[in-house]
Amino acid sequence: MTRMEPLKLAILGCGTVGTEVVRLLHEQADDLTARIGAPLSIAGIAVRRPDRDRGALPVPRELFTSDAVGLVKRADVDIVVEVVGGLEPARSWLVDALRAGKSVVTANKALLAEDTATLAAAAADGDTDLYYEAAVAGAIPLLRPLRESLHGDRVTRITGIVNGTTNYILSKMDSTGAGFGEALDEATELGYAEADPTADVEGFDAAAKAAILASLGFHTRVTAADVYRVGITDVTAADVAAAKEMGCTVKLLCIAERRTDPDGTDSVSARVHPAMIPRSHPLAGVGDAYNAVFVEAEAAGQLMFYGAGAGGAPTASAVLGDIVAVARNRRLGRSGTPDSAYANLRIRPMGEIETRYHISLDVADRAGVLATVATVFAEHGVSIQTVRQEGRGQGGEALLVIVTHRAPDAALRSTVDALASLDIVRQVASVMRVEGETAQ
Amino acid sequence: MTRMEPLKLAILGCGTVGTEVVRLLHEQADDLTARIGAPLSIAGIAVRRPDRDRGALPVPRELFTSDAVGLVKRADVDIVVEVVGGLEPARSWLVDALRAGKSVVTANKALLAEDTATLAAAAADGDTDLYYEAAVAGAIPLLRPLRESLHGDRVTRITGIVNGTTNYILSKMDSTGAGFGEALDEATELGYAEADPTADVEGFDAAAKAAILASLGFHTRVTAADVYRVGITDVTAADVAAAKEMGCTVKLLCIAERRTDPDGTDSVSARVHPAMIPRSHPLAGVGDAYNAVFVEAEAAGQLMFYGAGAGGAPTASAVLGDIVAVARNRRLGRSGTPDSAYANLRIRPMGEIETRYHISLDVADRAGVLATVATVFAEHGVSIQTVRQEGRGQGGEALLVIVTHRAPDAALRSTVDALASLDIVRQVASVMRVEGETAQ
Repeated sequence: MTRMEPLKLAILGCGTVGTEVVRLLHEQADDLTARIGAPLSIAGIAVRRPDRDRGALPVPRELFTSDAVGLVKRADVDIVVEVVGGLEPARSWLVDALRAGKSVVTANKALLAEDTATLAAAAADGDTDLYYEAAVAGAIPLLRPLRESLHGDRVTRITGIVNGTTNYILSKMDSTGAGFGEALDEATELGYAEADPTADVEGFDAAAKAAILASLGFHTRVTAADVYRVGITDVTAADVAAAKEMGCTVKLLCIAERRTDPDGTDSVSARVHPAMIPRSHPLAGVGDAYNAVFVEAEAAGQLMFYGAGAGGAPTASAVLGDIVAVARNRRLGRSGTPDSAYANLRIRPMGEIETRYHISLDVADRAGVLATVATVFAEHGVSIQTVRQEGRGQGGEALLVIVTHRAPDAALRSTVDALASLDIVRQVASVMRVEGETAQ
Repeated sequence: MTRMEPLKLAILGCGTVGTEVVRLLHEQADDLTARIGAPLSIAGIAVRRPDRDRGALPVPRELFTSDAVGLVKRADVDIVVEVVGGLEPARSWLVDALRAGKSVVTANKALLAEDTATLAAAAADGDTDLYYEAAVAGAIPLLRPLRESLHGDRVTRITGIVNGTTNYILSKMDSTGAGFGEALDEATELGYAEADPTADVEGFDAAAKAAILASLGFHTRVTAADVYRVGITDVTAADVAAAKEMGCTVKLLCIAERRTDPDGTDSVSARVHPAMIPRSHPLAGVGDAYNAVFVEAEAAGQLMFYGAGAGGAPTASAVLGDIVAVARNRRLGRSGTPDSAYANLRIRPMGEIETRYHISLDVADRAGVLATVATVFAEHGVSIQTVRQEGRGQGGEALLVIVTHRAPDAALRSTVDALASLDIVRQVASVMRVEGETAQ
């Protein structure tokens, strides 16, 4: 293989992921050179505090700079690797880099979910590569398969567990019966949850990934704003127990669906919310902080991708894979598979999406209650799959546990509102969506 | 997107997979055109009997020809899709096509496992693409992730269930307690096993896939001849029961490992054999005819890919994905990621590989037997993890169930031979390798 001038990298950010990227670039140098056909060299690393001691890192101190803009603009920089995150200034840096024809590798899911269009346009202007395998599900090779391997097929549904923090919390609640707060505390202690866990537990992180997966899977543009989002902060130990009762477990799911509407046109939807899924579902067994994405395609059938969804090393592995890809493309004077968003599909709002609900009601324990409740469902065109009634002995109260058939989410929500307003209903104890075929 | 002249396909073979490929090319035509930036058209389909009625297929009869050589040579053919299988004449057709600069998409695992080197060289000569995602694990996007996504990482181990027929048979034996013959008969009835199941049940199919996975994962050449192979025909109901006893299930595993030898050089090994794995292992839950491949890499950690490993539609999905990839490459006047076999690693023979054995011995039920048996293990430098002794009452016989620690396979095999020659050993009832960490 003919040796060539080194390809020069500008690395933006040197946190957990950046540090691992630099370490791997050093450790795997020979293999990377062989795979690319040219060596890689680091032109500079942009950080907030260049003079901070990074003793462990195998790079000379003078490579660190606080001038990201200047580093990106440097004529000798071929590839810009962004592991800073956030919308700005990351977007401006990457747009400049792409327009200047530099290849970009980024793990910035928030930016991609917000504005892939701008980045993709800049990449087209510069006739260069924009790769971001690390933005979703860490090291799990997922975007490339969706972008390329399944290009000859029609993806119909993507169901994923794409946030390790919430999966760790829900797994704990399931295995120990703990409440949300207790499980969150443990996750924080063990470093699975950040000091401010909002982005994870409120589902923002998963929603960003849902937007990226839906865009790639369905060849259309879906942004975070298009994603219906509910986090796990309201999931109670009672919800988890109720799930167990029906052979299910509770997961925070990211679900992207393609549907052909009655008028023959296709539309897509993307949503993130807690849901009960049968323990027999391949995703039910995904525990702790692991991620897994279940893809259904017309010809391929059911596929599942499983692995570590976060962490410095796994994420860095995905970043390195992209670096090798764009570096090889540069060496061969070409660019890789661009995002295709040709489909321009309508985004279906949550109210139109057909889901199933699991509803627990504290009701007065007297004759006719079930009839009254059943009538409310009927009035909203929601059909009931199962009802379980448990007398509670004290205070003439009973618990009604209802699982519905599939119905438009809007109809289900208004049914719950109507139930809440019945005077025989003391309280709506729990409401959760159900995904997958349940036994009962 | 600028429309272009159609890219012309020569399809070699029109069996289960070929038929699905043709159907998908027709059904997905508009999407494929949008994704490629140019339409695809079928120049011809080479089959043994061109005049056979293929009524259902949406292609004009005159496209069928028995002259594969002529079709491949046609100047207007851009892409050759081979779904015939077998070494010859497939190899000659593909070598001609590649040398002539035509892109090749093939699902021919036997040929790739035997002689990827020749095909890769021809692809280099023609500066064109050789893609074969469909050759391993049907629709599961696996080769592209290994070739590209994990290029920045170091794959250490690949463990897979890559043959649906044998997995169906072993799953049946596990769930019903049936013997091999009975389970095979059922698999045949249900169409999971071919009339002549040799290639599947003797592990030849899995060995071919092992060679391909090892080559891609470790960037070196491994051929089917390098793969140690044992099929499942000798797996008995007793073996499966014994596995259950220790919380395991029996799977036909394909295992490719990279190891750094004491002298600092790396070597690789590839093997296919039945093994007991703990039910807690992600692969243990892979039932029926499904495939799954478990990949371990230094930075990425543990990844698993799961899906339908065979069948017309899933395999066709992988073929179509490759067709889109090579078609786009042609449209952009480039070629994709070539195989890299730069590593040239030594192939480690089975005898050197460290494994663990589960051994059941019918022994005379008298004092000192265990001591004698233990001495044999010690003499061969094999250390025992657990021994279970069961008196059998009748005829003064006992059953000794031994699980060893890891030891070179050669040492374990000679231990078994030595045990068989002891006169206190009535017979070696069962011997099977054990993979993964077992509880006891």
